Amino acid sequence: MTKRKIRRKLNIKTRAIRPRKIAQKKGKQPGAIIYVGDREGMASSVNIMEYNWDHLQEYSLASMTELEKQRDSNTNSWIDIIGISDEKFIEDLGKKFEINNLALEDAINTQQRPKIDEYDNYIFGVFKMLYLDDNQQLVVEHIALTLFKHNVLVFQELKGDVFNGVRERLRNRTGKIRAKGADYLFFALIDAVVDSYFEVSENIFERIDTLEDEVYYDPKPDTARKIQELKKEVIRMHKWIFPVKEMIHRLIETDNPMISKDTRLYLRDALDHCIEINETLQIYREMSISLMEMYMTSVSNKMNEVMKVLTIMASIFIPLTFIAGIYGMNFEYMPELNWRYGYSVVLALMLIILVGMLIFFKKKRWI
Amino acid sequence: MTKRKIRRKLNIKTRAIRPRKIAQKKGKQPGAIIYVGDREGMASSVNIMEYNWDHLQEYSLASMTELEKQRDSNTNSWIDIIGISDEKFIEDLGKKFEINNLALEDAINTQQRPKIDEYDNYIFGVFKMLYLDDNQQLVVEHIALTLFKHNVLVFQELKGDVFNGVRERLRNRTGKIRAKGADYLFFALIDAVVDSYFEVSENIFERIDTLEDEVYYDPKPDTARKIQELKKEVIRMHKWIFPVKEMIHRLIETDNPMISKDTRLYLRDALDHCIEINETLQIYREMSISLMEMYMTSVSNKMNEVMKVLTIMASIFIPLTFIAGIYGMNFEYMPELNWRYGYSVVLALMLIILVGMLIFFKKKRWI
Amino acid sequence: MTKRKIRRKLNIKTRAIRPRKIAQKKGKQPGAIIYVGDREGMASSVNIMEYNWDHLQEYSLASMTELEKQRDSNTNSWIDIIGISDEKFIEDLGKKFEINNLALEDAINTQQRPKIDEYDNYIFGVFKMLYLDDNQQLVVEHIALTLFKHNVLVFQELKGDVFNGVRERLRNRTGKIRAKGADYLFFALIDAVVDSYFEVSENIFERIDTLEDEVYYDPKPDTARKIQELKKEVIRMHKWIFPVKEMIHRLIETDNPMISKDTRLYLRDALDHCIEINETLQIYREMSISLMEMYMTSVSNKMNEVMKVLTIMASIFIPLTFIAGIYGMNFEYMPELNWRYGYSVVLALMLIILVGMLIFFKKKRWI
Amino acid sequence: MTKRKIRRKLNIKTRAIRPRKIAQKKGKQPGAIIYVGDREGMASSVNIMEYNWDHLQEYSLASMTELEKQRDSNTNSWIDIIGISDEKFIEDLGKKFEINNLALEDAINTQQRPKIDEYDNYIFGVFKMLYLDDNQQLVVEHIALTLFKHNVLVFQELKGDVFNGVRERLRNRTGKIRAKGADYLFFALIDAVVDSYFEVSENIFERIDTLEDEVYYDPKPDTARKIQELKKEVIRMHKWIFPVKEMIHRLIETDNPMISKDTRLYLRDALDHCIEINETLQIYREMSISLMEMYMTSVSNKMNEVMKVLTIMASIFIPLTFIAGIYGMNFEYMPELNWRYGYSVVLALMLIILVGMLIFFKKKRWI
Amino acid sequence: MTKRKIRRKLNIKTRAIRPRKIAQKKGKQPGAIIYVGDREGMASSVNIMEYNWDHLQEYSLASMTELEKQRDSNTNSWIDIIGISDEKFIEDLGKKFEINNLALEDAINTQQRPKIDEYDNYIFGVFKMLYLDDNQQLVVEHIALTLFKHNVLVFQELKGDVFNGVRERLRNRTGKIRAKGADYLFFALIDAVVDSYFEVSENIFERIDTLEDEVYYDPKPDTARKIQELKKEVIRMHKWIFPVKEMIHRLIETDNPMISKDTRLYLRDALDHCIEINETLQIYREMSISLMEMYMTSVSNKMNEVMKVLTIMASIFIPLTFIAGIYGMNFEYMPELNWRYGYSVVLALMLIILVGMLIFFKKKRWI
Repeated sequence: MTKRKIRRKLNIKTRAIRPRKIAQKKGKQPGAIIYVGDREGMASSVNIMEYNWDHLQEYSLASMTELEKQRDSNTNSWIDIIGISDEKFIEDLGKKFEINNLALEDAINTQQRPKIDEYDNYIFGVFKMLYLDDNQQLVVEHIALTLFKHNVLVFQELKGDVFNGVRERLRNRTGKIRAKGADYLFFALIDAVVDSYFEVSENIFERIDTLEDEVYYDPKPDTARKIQELKKEVIRMHKWIFPVKEMIHRLIETDNPMISKDTRLYLRDALDHCIEINETLQIYREMSISLMEMYMTSVSNKMNEVMKVLTIMASIFIPLTFIAGIYGMNFEYMPELNWRYGYSVVLALMLIILVGMLIFFKKKRWI
Repeated sequence: MTKRKIRRKLNIKTRAIRPRKIAQKKGKQPGAIIYVGDREGMASSVNIMEYNWDHLQEYSLASMTELEKQRDSNTNSWIDIIGISDEKFIEDLGKKFEINNLALEDAINTQQRPKIDEYDNYIFGVFKMLYLDDNQQLVVEHIALTLFKHNVLVFQELKGDVFNGVRERLRNRTGKIRAKGADYLFFALIDAVVDSYFEVSENIFERIDTLEDEVYYDPKPDTARKIQELKKEVIRMHKWIFPVKEMIHRLIETDNPMISKDTRLYLRDALDHCIEINETLQIYREMSISLMEMYMTSVSNKMNEVMKVLTIMASIFIPLTFIAGIYGMNFEYMPELNWRYGYSVVLALMLIILVGMLIFFKKKRWI
Repeated sequence: MTKRKIRRKLNIKTRAIRPRKIAQKKGKQPGAIIYVGDREGMASSVNIMEYNWDHLQEYSLASMTELEKQRDSNTNSWIDIIGISDEKFIEDLGKKFEINNLALEDAINTQQRPKIDEYDNYIFGVFKMLYLDDNQQLVVEHIALTLFKHNVLVFQELKGDVFNGVRERLRNRTGKIRAKGADYLFFALIDAVVDSYFEVSENIFERIDTLEDEVYYDPKPDTARKIQELKKEVIRMHKWIFPVKEMIHRLIETDNPMISKDTRLYLRDALDHCIEINETLQIYREMSISLMEMYMTSVSNKMNEVMKVLTIMASIFIPLTFIAGIYGMNFEYMPELNWRYGYSVVLALMLIILVGMLIFFKKKRWI
Repeated sequence: MTKRKIRRKLNIKTRAIRPRKIAQKKGKQPGAIIYVGDREGMASSVNIMEYNWDHLQEYSLASMTELEKQRDSNTNSWIDIIGISDEKFIEDLGKKFEINNLALEDAINTQQRPKIDEYDNYIFGVFKMLYLDDNQQLVVEHIALTLFKHNVLVFQELKGDVFNGVRERLRNRTGKIRAKGADYLFFALIDAVVDSYFEVSENIFERIDTLEDEVYYDPKPDTARKIQELKKEVIRMHKWIFPVKEMIHRLIETDNPMISKDTRLYLRDALDHCIEINETLQIYREMSISLMEMYMTSVSNKMNEVMKVLTIMASIFIPLTFIAGIYGMNFEYMPELNWRYGYSVVLALMLIILVGMLIFFKKKRWI
Repeated sequence: MTKRKIRRKLNIKTRAIRPRKIAQKKGKQPGAIIYVGDREGMASSVNIMEYNWDHLQEYSLASMTELEKQRDSNTNSWIDIIGISDEKFIEDLGKKFEINNLALEDAINTQQRPKIDEYDNYIFGVFKMLYLDDNQQLVVEHIALTLFKHNVLVFQELKGDVFNGVRERLRNRTGKIRAKGADYLFFALIDAVVDSYFEVSENIFERIDTLEDEVYYDPKPDTARKIQELKKEVIRMHKWIFPVKEMIHRLIETDNPMISKDTRLYLRDALDHCIEINETLQIYREMSISLMEMYMTSVSNKMNEVMKVLTIMASIFIPLTFIAGIYGMNFEYMPELNWRYGYSVVLALMLIILVGMLIFFKKKRWI
């Protein structure tokens, strides 16, 4: 991987934990409906699924007036707004449903952290869908859900989402989704979002698994970088997922009559999943700390090994070279030089030193 | 141990903290009764112990209709369902006892974290039995307990369990278990599960003990890996054990009349044990951190020792070799070479340097 | 960068977390209105914006008596006091508005930590504006806001501030700010302060980004210092920003009728931003820890590389030199010396050792 | 110290944080009165102090029936049961005082963590006495106190205890202990237990003091082990002492009329001591972490010193040896060799290099 | 600094976090009025300031009976007891004011941690004054304040204190201290104690500043020790200051009529200061951790530099020496030796190797 590529990857990762881009909103009053995000210039389209137990109708919104029909009808409907950068359109739509400007502002501010706000006639929630793109990069998509008595409005940035399972259940009448109210649909969408977290966390898990192998059998300088990136990714996921636990808890505990007792039972189930995903992220964090520790340990151990080789080589040959040096001196009077077996005796002496050294290092368990 | 074996072991350990396998449930509605786990394809069998103070009857369930008898009878019974991958069977059984689908779903989702839910006619709890298999590997078995007025339903994955003590007490009329209601049986089963944690924690303790020896007397690169594995194991146990404390607390505090005042007293005892096991795990965690610290220290100390040997050898012989080198030069005019005692004087000089160096290192306490 | 410059920069940074300068207040009674800070000797000037939906008037205060008019009028006004080191002036002004001495003391004590106090007729809050000066150094400006029924008093140290957006909205009648009460202005000012935190945090983010590059590709001893400085800066920001969350929360929850239900809705929005900025600071803290870890890792890795080069060079040439040493000895009887191919054989032997060593190091993956 | 001795010491220390020995209780029903501990086979003896302001009587219990007299009398008495491994005896005694089996079980389970349980007629508490044996080893003795209207039952494992001060005050009528009720005696015993923690913590303090000296002036590999042992000891003490704070707090807050208002005032004093001892342990923990840090630092500093010696020696002599090597070459045409002052010039050159090197290292502040 | 001096300094520092000296109180009943501390044998003297708006009288107490006059008079008075080791005197004085023995015990136990206790007729508080002696050593002086309806009793160990500012305000009628009740005096004294913490923390700040310089520009082994000492000092201050926050909070919240609404307002101000000093200590703690980290980093960086010098020297000269060694061999048949330019060629070869090495190290950015 070239440095530039690494850089680009890092940039993507790091940008994700950047504070919200304020330039876009600077000096504007609160409640100003301004799109904040990277996916500008997309036209908004609205898909509507109108359903009750007996019939289901899917269509795209042609004109704003059709919305009024949905708003006033007693049939449940899922109004799915795709593309939120058209501020004018969003504002008009908001007026039809009498959504507070503060809520609308959050609906199209992709930097808004997850939250639930209860208003008089509706419940408004901001969530983050997490999924992996084709390059296995984590994508965070901002999403806003609004529950009315008979309608659920969904604001999403991009076309793809994690709601296909819900759509299928509506179409095929699986389970009781079509027999129940809009609050159940609201729950089902939240549940799908929470399920998306598991999928992403599965991917994190696999990366930990791979890194564990790398750390134990082949640690490279690059490995440390990968571990840190992983940690950053977990921190980032935590940021988006952590508030959801509290949000679902509030939905269960609220005395708002829009959420039926039955739906609360299901929300309790989703809460359970949220707790679990948070625990899992916590464990991932601890594992990435362990990985870093192991990496440092393995670096130290390698250093130790390097030092041992050096010490063994030097400790054996430096004394031997010294002996050779002595008999390389040119003194006139050096009796040993003239002895018949001088050379052999010195060679034998060197051998003894060599063996002695080896035994010494063996005893120290260095070799 | 070959690398492959290590790998396999690691895999087993790491898999245990994997997020729940979502592929099996993807796109299904909440409450869909689907087995999630690794032990598929096992037929379900049902063992029933019907008892009061005077009589005890044990038998295997032949047909579903026998269950109705138990359900409606006023005698206490322990209905033990072994094997939970037969989804159809579980669903039928659930209908007989009017168990909510959300509860049934959790009963056969082995990835479900421990929890207690109170329904109108029953209390439903998910626990994890922990025990060691023949290879001393930690096995986590999913278990679900359901308390009715006169019945306790137990859903378990595999044949073996930690309830033999309870069975014996029922058979031998030990203590007052046969004189008390189903709620006491419910408690006794929870108590047996909590006791199983102690047994596993005893094993962890022994491994810490062994590792402590290894770190102090013979640290190897592999030791660090073992310490990290231990830590991971403790994290994993904590994940399954931690929620139980809160669960038992809720059973004690609930105003549900199904749990008698007397049983609450016993539950308080189990709560005590739960608090203790959690404290123990906390201590284990701190000990594994200490072990890692000690390991790093001992690696550093060994490095120090290696460096000292190198430094001593090099510092002694490099200057000596240099002196030998001087008198190995071939200059024509080198008066020392022709002196009668030149050689002896140089040898004496070398000895002095050697002794001086040794004294220097002795003073520095390196030798 | 010279040492002196570094020092000066450090001094600036470190001073910022110094405890309040007590010499200035020593031995004075509580409630003594004494300016504590570094910007002494500035004359106070007062700018007033008087507004309702229909008209807006901006003027500078000429004499104290004009204030009484504002105090008693039913039109909203924003009374902006710039320069707070003229203790006498502040005291007179305080008396006109019947502000408690304890509050006045805090208004001109720039070491006062952020807080909200509710008095009978007014709400008094101390905040810190954060912004970057021309050298990209973080500047902290002390600010005190006081909300009366129809007036908002602002005490600020210096001329520049972060309220120009609010001024423009007042002048241009943007949003509904001129239609609403003084409490909304109070909120708008707090909101502008909170927004200033985002701007500064954006700068921190860019420094982390740069440091990340430096750590990965070119770590220098100086890098560690920069990381630590960054950490100190985050700690410092946290000190000023953290209490604001609780303060806004109290404004939302208070039963004080001066804050309308509508304004509370807006404050909830500001609270949201406060929570986010605190989360962001938390993430920055974790990232600076990661950076330090990575730095240490890269230092260790470099050391490893250095050691490897040394070991390879020494391990290859020390044995070869030894062999050369042997045949440099001057023994009379050394048969090899007289062999025809002695020299060639020794050279060949050396080559073999050289190649052997290279293979050994290759296998160890050191080269 | 031989390795074996170290091992034995470690074993003692480590065993202390072992989970309760479950083999002894496996498969038994809750409430089974079974001794769990290491001091088996000791006969139980019972010492009774019966007292009011006017008289005091001390005697050993001869037969169980004498107990009934005490139970029913209105004089206060301290019934001290020494030796708790005789399960039959404990059970009989328990029946006489109508103590719940769950309490009795805890009274003789030495692995039971500290706790307070309130029953209808009595308050039951488990504590740990800490003291040092003759080898300065920490001994943990399990103790159970039971407060009745006029009696205090004490269950203790061994003969010695920390209550001699209380006995003396009873015998000598010091303070008002004989004028007050059984609840004051109960308090006095708890107070004596809490005081015992201070004595042990004093010993820990002295060990920290000694280790601090060792780390600063003479760190050895063994030092790290001692620090870790210290940390383990503190963790262990924390385990036994921490719950006591909450326990005393509950005694103060309870609405149980057995504890007089006056005694609560004294308990508040004991609570204070408990808070202090917990704070002290917390500080010890931080100090042991600091010690470990200092140890690592001193190991690094020593390594640095070793490396410097090596580097200085090698850097000075390796170039010199090289020069000597050059003039040791046997080339036929080497003009320098025949120069009259060749040898002197080379020696001078060597001296210059030597001095240059020394200046270089001096400038680097290595020597 | 000699080792002995360091030792003595360490002793002073370490003693400060020693658990209270129990030998002095062993076996005594609770409420026994025994002086615990290091400043024994000092005679007690009592200074009284009697004041109301119109007059002020200062005098030293001659006999105990004068106290009764103060006790029963309606004029406010500050009764300042200096020297608390005369147990008999303290006990008599306590009886005159009907102070509970438990409070008196704490008043003269210098190891008592800070606390507030409310009794029927008075409020009793223990605090610690912190100040620096002439050697800039931190001195902790135990102090006890007792608030009666018209009197404030102050127990202090030594003559000097931090209350001179309060005395001056009383004498000079500064502020409204003489117009207000004893509760305001009580507050003023607490406020002076809290202010003393700032002065000490200023000193800590300067030491951090100096150490920062030392770590960055001239780290020595001693530096680490100084950092650790600093950390210990901060821990120690935290121990004495932390409880004060809670204590003042309790004074504000109590429904005790002795503390007027007006005084509570002032106490809220003192609480603010207390929160700030605690935050500052927290920041100091984090800074000392950062300092230690930086120290370790600088040690590692220095090691790296040392290693580089060694590696460069060795890597350059070891190969050169080897070449010289080859041509120092005494083989009969070595053609190069007889070549006319053999010597020059070898020298040139050596030069090439030297330059090559230098380029290599330059490229690696080691030189």
